[in-house]
Amino acid sequence: MTADVCVLGVGLIGGSLLRALGPERTFGWNRSAPTAEAATAAGFDVTTDLPTTLRLAAETDALVVVGVPLPALEAVLGAVAEHAPTVALTDVISVKGPVLDAVRRHGLEARFVGGHPMAGTAHSGWDAGDPDLFRGATWLVAADDDADPDTWGRVARLALDTGARVVSATSADHDAAVARISHLGHVLAEALALAGGRGGDLALSLAAGSFRDGTRVAGTAPDLVRAICEPNRDALLDVLDECLADLGAARASLAERGTLGPLVDDGHRARRAYEDAQADRTGGGARPAEVTPGAAGWLEALRKAGAAGRAVRLADRP
Amino acid sequence: MTADVCVLGVGLIGGSLLRALGPERTFGWNRSAPTAEAATAAGFDVTTDLPTTLRLAAETDALVVVGVPLPALEAVLGAVAEHAPTVALTDVISVKGPVLDAVRRHGLEARFVGGHPMAGTAHSGWDAGDPDLFRGATWLVAADDDADPDTWGRVARLALDTGARVVSATSADHDAAVARISHLGHVLAEALALAGGRGGDLALSLAAGSFRDGTRVAGTAPDLVRAICEPNRDALLDVLDECLADLGAARASLAERGTLGPLVDDGHRARRAYEDAQADRTGGGARPAEVTPGAAGWLEALRKAGAAGRAVRLADRP
Repeated sequence: MTADVCVLGVGLIGGSLLRALGPERTFGWNRSAPTAEAATAAGFDVTTDLPTTLRLAAETDALVVVGVPLPALEAVLGAVAEHAPTVALTDVISVKGPVLDAVRRHGLEARFVGGHPMAGTAHSGWDAGDPDLFRGATWLVAADDDADPDTWGRVARLALDTGARVVSATSADHDAAVARISHLGHVLAEALALAGGRGGDLALSLAAGSFRDGTRVAGTAPDLVRAICEPNRDALLDVLDECLADLGAARASLAERGTLGPLVDDGHRARRAYEDAQADRTGGGARPAEVTPGAAGWLEALRKAGAAGRAVRLADRP
Repeated sequence: MTADVCVLGVGLIGGSLLRALGPERTFGWNRSAPTAEAATAAGFDVTTDLPTTLRLAAETDALVVVGVPLPALEAVLGAVAEHAPTVALTDVISVKGPVLDAVRRHGLEARFVGGHPMAGTAHSGWDAGDPDLFRGATWLVAADDDADPDTWGRVARLALDTGARVVSATSADHDAAVARISHLGHVLAEALALAGGRGGDLALSLAAGSFRDGTRVAGTAPDLVRAICEPNRDALLDVLDECLADLGAARASLAERGTLGPLVDDGHRARRAYEDAQADRTGGGARPAEVTPGAAGWLEALRKAGAAGRAVRLADRP
């Protein structure tokens, strides 16, 4: 089997991807030598020579997966534009609009389809990698205008091969959604932790399960929280404003009428909808939508399935 | 062994307390006949006759534990004042200031010491009871001015006998602390769930572990959330205002400078302090403070230990 996937950056996500697909299907690059050496020692073909790695990807038409953090994206895309300007390209960064903008600035959009595996741990780096990190997780494969059907299919197959479920949406819709279900949660967890901490040792001593769970993601390293949330600034500002309005209304209702008002019923209803969606997923209740990349209306079909929370499977998958 | 504990209301908490102490040490009352019958069928002495139950408690000098929800407190205290005005009295309601006020209105403060076991589940009622519900949980035993040392010792021993750790503070300090580590968390969980739900099926489909944990307590029945949070209105308003200011500052910083600002570092530091406090608890790092109820300065010693997050043990405990 020829290696058909080239991973640039083998930290938690890139390193887990190598492990999930195995050394026969993959090769890669990492900026830091110790990480590349660790990956090599584990049996993977990972170098610190980006131009050579990219030329090999171009020669073999491997799918190039950008696994570096957002701040390193510009430098990597510059190298891709120089050494492998026509490769099929995807990424695993947690925000999609800014990545798409950068890809366009480098003239690489013809064969680019963004991706985002919704998986992670509080840890990072090659050593934290896990071949099963993506199993059962959702992997967003972007359905932006003019997406190349062949690349889309390759990215979706890659995600399916790791055990993930594929959900599709435009980059903008993805970013708006993750502001709601991920980035806002980080901000609220920090605020709850801070409020508890201000209560001193007595408050922390009384804290039970609800505080533990509600503040769990505040245990993530601050730099990583910023790297996840801040690039999605516009979408996060919108949902923060919504949330501040909801909280302000509950505060006013509590002060004036002694009740938190509709927030409690509305929030409970939303949580139940989430639980139902999870039960559908794990119970296999909602059949994946079958899509043939490149067929008439395929991008609209992807977006429609995503808007309904339905996963996608490839029509030509045996 | 004579039954020395009388539990009024055998729902989740009261019913778990009966089970933790066993039928030989307990008797009780419940308003609804089916619940009293279920408790009787399980071997416990639980009736629907409140006056008779209270007269028995008075005759045997049993410690009376008020296990009814706050809205039912007035009626129960009225009955206590009528049928057993001099019994030793405690409660397990999640807010302490309003309970103390009610107890004073009924002239029952001389032998009253409030309590709050920091334990619960998303379920309620007799059937949800569990003899191990309090094991390892924190049980707040109030250290208010003029507390009766004998009653304080009996309440603390009761809590210790269920496997709980005893932490003490004034009712006001308790209410301020739980607004931070419990009630605010309920409000933020509802707001996060609502924000996610507004993102529709796509957002719920992309939701992963951080959303699941951050919204968990929004799965609690809305009436129960209100019953827990709203009686603590004044303390909750204070901490909501603090939290709204923190979130507003982070929002402004993100909009103006592209960064969430100090919230992320401060929240992370507070979460780490919480984790350290938990590790101390489970690792037995912080020795309990030894207190003799009634000894000179005993209430100050209790409050000092609580402010430091230290549990208490009774000096005369063998």
